[in-house]
Amino acid sequence: MANVDTSLPSETSGAAARLAARHADEYPLKLYGGWFCPFVQRAWITLCEKKIPHQYVEINPYKKEPEFLEMNPRGLVPTLAVPASARSKQQKPLFESAIICEYLEDAYSDEAKYGPALLPADPYERARARLWIDHHTPEKPYSIEQARDELHGHIKRLTDQMDSPGPWFLGQEFSLVDISLAPWAKRLWLIDNYKPGGLGIPKEGQDGIWGRWRTWMEALENRQSVNDTWSDDERYVLAYKRYAEDTTNSLVGQATRQGKKLP
Amino acid sequence: MANVDTSLPSETSGAAARLAARHADEYPLKLYGGWFCPFVQRAWITLCEKKIPHQYVEINPYKKEPEFLEMNPRGLVPTLAVPASARSKQQKPLFESAIICEYLEDAYSDEAKYGPALLPADPYERARARLWIDHHTPEKPYSIEQARDELHGHIKRLTDQMDSPGPWFLGQEFSLVDISLAPWAKRLWLIDNYKPGGLGIPKEGQDGIWGRWRTWMEALENRQSVNDTWSDDERYVLAYKRYAEDTTNSLVGQATRQGKKLP
Repeated sequence: MANVDTSLPSETSGAAARLAARHADEYPLKLYGGWFCPFVQRAWITLCEKKIPHQYVEINPYKKEPEFLEMNPRGLVPTLAVPASARSKQQKPLFESAIICEYLEDAYSDEAKYGPALLPADPYERARARLWIDHHTPEKPYSIEQARDELHGHIKRLTDQMDSPGPWFLGQEFSLVDISLAPWAKRLWLIDNYKPGGLGIPKEGQDGIWGRWRTWMEALENRQSVNDTWSDDERYVLAYKRYAEDTTNSLVGQATRQGKKLP
Repeated sequence: MANVDTSLPSETSGAAARLAARHADEYPLKLYGGWFCPFVQRAWITLCEKKIPHQYVEINPYKKEPEFLEMNPRGLVPTLAVPASARSKQQKPLFESAIICEYLEDAYSDEAKYGPALLPADPYERARARLWIDHHTPEKPYSIEQARDELHGHIKRLTDQMDSPGPWFLGQEFSLVDISLAPWAKRLWLIDNYKPGGLGIPKEGQDGIWGRWRTWMEALENRQSVNDTWSDDERYVLAYKRYAEDTTNSLVGQATRQGKKLP
């Protein structure tokens, strides 16, 4: 099958390829994703965390399958296809990463089978977690200096809200807040890759914000579900290079730059 | 107290004034709102539907109280102030209308006391409801013809998803989907008011989309919580006139035109 965009590989690689291979068999619950999409990674991490049986289907954003578009005319990823009933082959689609993650949390809530809940039980604490799940990254492109100031402000607001000592956002329990933030945090190194020193996050010393941030980042870097859903580093360098250079006018690029859902 | 903006009354009126008066007494659970804000009306309708004891505090967007800004530095409305504990005077704030509504649904879930649930019990149906709760109105200003086409497309997508015969979005049960859509639906007549014939929704005949839409609108117009949270019609004409004429550069105006949260 021809890959219409020769510079962007349309396949998972590395750990994500091994994970996708383990979930390639036909299964009623399906995640349609794209390996480079941070919103997809949220849903994928959640499936892994809860060890939910599923099929992973990689969608080439430049060549979407007709069967996929039939179920999902806007062609959004992530899409979760939920079987209409145990015996039916008909699928009911869900979109929007935060809604997919909460669905998985609701539908697979048996802690004996699917592990600890990913949202607090207390209604106020649940609501507070949702505020930070929906706390989006900045929406507009700007200079590297402005971007760094906004990013540092964003990290400060996040770490201010993080439980101390952690290591996770809400304390000792990994939650949907960590899952929602992980895909962005995992991509931050790309800024330094394109623009050495651009990120401006100190690697050691400086307690407070940066100490708390590093504690969280280290916990994240050791989390299996986060690592298992990650393709090879150089693929991300390739995928985001075009956005970093602002050379593409594709809808994918526009959506990514604006912090919106991928088309 | 001086009202710095002489053209926009900073007080509730009509039914909303009577409702506010019944909830003026000091109470630990507080809704900080603005009478003209559709996001506030979502939270307010939910409090009414569940008959949750609360205090309503009207915030003048042009003159925010220091105590309010202390709890809520960005000064967003709606803000729900939740008491930190039964005995404490300390308040924990919640923002974002959809998150406030889900919090009220979670925290006041005893159906014997607070009436029927406002979200379906089935995880997929809950997720589907959330998709339509988050289904935002168009974001950019445009010509009246473009706006009408987009609005009609939006109404078509909504009615396609509505249960038939209804009357509510999900069927016989009023839900957070209806609550989320109600404030926008309630304001649609303003388009005809500023631009006669601009709305282009037929008042009778034409089954299908328009028939289903009118069934829902009629149910909404008879819903007490929706009517109780509504100020006098002419106040909305006054409040949105400036936005309709695009003569204000205030943050409130920008946010409203962009379909975003009010500052």
